[in-house]
Amino acid sequence: MIKVNDNYLKLPGSYLFSTVGRKQREYEKAHPDRNVIRLSIGDVTQPLAPVILEAMHKAVDEMGQAETFRGYAPDLGYEFLRDAIAKGDYHSRGADISADEIFVSDGAKCDSSNIQEIFSLHSKIAVCDPVYPVYVDSNVMAGRTGTYDVETERWSNVIYMPCTADNDFAPELPKETPDLIYLCFPNNPTGSTITKDQLQVWVDYANKVGAVIIYDAAYEAYISEENVPHTIYECVGARTCAIELKSFSKNAGFTGVRLGYTVIPKELKCGDTALHSLWARRHGTKYNGAPYIIQRAGEAVYSREGREQLKKQVAYYMNNAKTIYQGLKKAGYQVSGGVNAPYIWLKTPDKMTSWEFFDYLLEKANVVGTPGSGFGPSGEGYFRLTAFGSYENTVEALDRIQKM
Amino acid sequence: MIKVNDNYLKLPGSYLFSTVGRKQREYEKAHPDRNVIRLSIGDVTQPLAPVILEAMHKAVDEMGQAETFRGYAPDLGYEFLRDAIAKGDYHSRGADISADEIFVSDGAKCDSSNIQEIFSLHSKIAVCDPVYPVYVDSNVMAGRTGTYDVETERWSNVIYMPCTADNDFAPELPKETPDLIYLCFPNNPTGSTITKDQLQVWVDYANKVGAVIIYDAAYEAYISEENVPHTIYECVGARTCAIELKSFSKNAGFTGVRLGYTVIPKELKCGDTALHSLWARRHGTKYNGAPYIIQRAGEAVYSREGREQLKKQVAYYMNNAKTIYQGLKKAGYQVSGGVNAPYIWLKTPDKMTSWEFFDYLLEKANVVGTPGSGFGPSGEGYFRLTAFGSYENTVEALDRIQKM
Repeated sequence: MIKVNDNYLKLPGSYLFSTVGRKQREYEKAHPDRNVIRLSIGDVTQPLAPVILEAMHKAVDEMGQAETFRGYAPDLGYEFLRDAIAKGDYHSRGADISADEIFVSDGAKCDSSNIQEIFSLHSKIAVCDPVYPVYVDSNVMAGRTGTYDVETERWSNVIYMPCTADNDFAPELPKETPDLIYLCFPNNPTGSTITKDQLQVWVDYANKVGAVIIYDAAYEAYISEENVPHTIYECVGARTCAIELKSFSKNAGFTGVRLGYTVIPKELKCGDTALHSLWARRHGTKYNGAPYIIQRAGEAVYSREGREQLKKQVAYYMNNAKTIYQGLKKAGYQVSGGVNAPYIWLKTPDKMTSWEFFDYLLEKANVVGTPGSGFGPSGEGYFRLTAFGSYENTVEALDRIQKM
Repeated sequence: MIKVNDNYLKLPGSYLFSTVGRKQREYEKAHPDRNVIRLSIGDVTQPLAPVILEAMHKAVDEMGQAETFRGYAPDLGYEFLRDAIAKGDYHSRGADISADEIFVSDGAKCDSSNIQEIFSLHSKIAVCDPVYPVYVDSNVMAGRTGTYDVETERWSNVIYMPCTADNDFAPELPKETPDLIYLCFPNNPTGSTITKDQLQVWVDYANKVGAVIIYDAAYEAYISEENVPHTIYECVGARTCAIELKSFSKNAGFTGVRLGYTVIPKELKCGDTALHSLWARRHGTKYNGAPYIIQRAGEAVYSREGREQLKKQVAYYMNNAKTIYQGLKKAGYQVSGGVNAPYIWLKTPDKMTSWEFFDYLLEKANVVGTPGSGFGPSGEGYFRLTAFGSYENTVEALDRIQKM
């Protein structure tokens, strides 16, 4: 008699963004006359850049001719894309990563949820609190997190590193030693970041205790300040302790195109076992590559025109971030983020809980955001707005919020 | 100190097709003058059909306009595609599957390796022998298969159902009761299939013992004979015991496009838990949808023109299958498959092992095939050739084989 993986049954409620989406749909159904503005999920709204469209049209045409048709992609991804990544994202920053340490995938969400699979079920994970829910939930599903305490909203076998206004949203080294440390900078959801020196502390710590850092750099393109690292491999010693995840969703608007990659340096080992070879085995056995057409789109991101066109796209969203940040400030909110990240993190007013503020904002301003508590217990009393709307909607939303 | 998932270390050798590819590359490097013909991996060679190219060009254009741009796809996939699948693959065959029981994915390889995740680690799996390696390897990685015996090439905790010439390559009900039964018809690698009545026996058995059947119907488009089921949901009672996996790789040439889907009927339960809701949770948490452009390509497969154009493509490959089948027969080989499937399964001559024949064929005819033993111990002494090459290459390969 078949039994289910009962770790799934331990998951409290549904996936955060599914709940946010459901609540929005219910409100819209009940109030069909209202124009609801969505600044919740980190989904982009600007069309793809011309150079990317051109690359995809060309690749589609290639797929229509026997001579240029492509079937199964190479396990790690096409060399043309891995070369462009190695050069564009690493060599240009003095980071020593080679093309054969890059694994192309269909996005950082899949990679960040699958990467835990190559580690022992007895590994102890450490996460920032608040945190992107996928890191924790994927470990819950695998059975690594112990039991859930409804009171504290914490898992018994997870190390939480609170990130609040008190520590400027930067995690401190945990007291208990973790095996796997998830870090995301620029951060989702708080929009904060840390300096290269601060990240070096984490790299040194991981090398000292024998932990592996899963470094999610999905929002790297939004870094505007000096001294904020663009990749963890800018830090000395990262090649022996860090795996980096990257996404094309936010720098190139690929949320509906689906492309990402994972870097595993060949020196990164547990005993004699190279993690690179385990992930290669997983890729070969459980994955079949990103579509050729999409990998060509990814390549175009690194072309000269691609860089120029996407710089403008990122600037567009960062102008929204500024609009939100300043608009909230003006309305008297306590705000952070929005400078090196497309996320603005605000303290809810009048001691409202995050979900109370969600309902309040939806009701009074017809604006959808994401409750901070959905990202972890230390997110309670906070709220996330994203800069990925259109400029017009963003201005309108802030106008409404100021009038609340 | 981090530890790896040591189940990965139990896997013998590398993924079958990686080894076949490596051996081919080595041979070509050593003999650059030889024209090696590859009839090994099930990779298609015909260009995409015009109606599919058209749909993709249109979707690319949509992604270039703010009004029609699409970001994250709905969790289960776009309704336009799920509706087309429900109608085209199920309602048309009298199978009662609704659009919201269909989960769109980036291919059947990912789905067939990920599906085990929603079941208990204590589940016992049953597989045909020989079998598509992904079913077993994904369970090895999860830790469900016990220990590997190098002598017998079997896992201690896997039920093997031999499929050889003795039973006409159709598995018999296992003596020991399994929890999870993997079936693939038309079969990879043997190219054989079973009748609707035979499949009904499996459905009845699964319902009786409380097992779940993972039914891989990736090669359904190649069925040419009457009374061979196109979907397991043609059988009475399949809604309470079967999950079906489908691929667009072989019916529409999508090996490099990446699209597939999984069907989980809502009645399929373990105790009170609907497997549909577990898979939905996995999709929502660990997956981010197939690209919009690719889902539109999938929709085009079900259009009138799509059906007509793809019928010709399948006929092209099946003509190759006939060429291989008849050519091998003529050369005195014992052959099966190739009638309802693009795979031809042959008995190696002169008691050669599968890998001996691989080397022999590569050396003497410069043709690459896949050793039967790579699919399981009962595949020893067999060899697989695929019909997915070009007609010219296929004719040339058989010509060379006949002259060996």
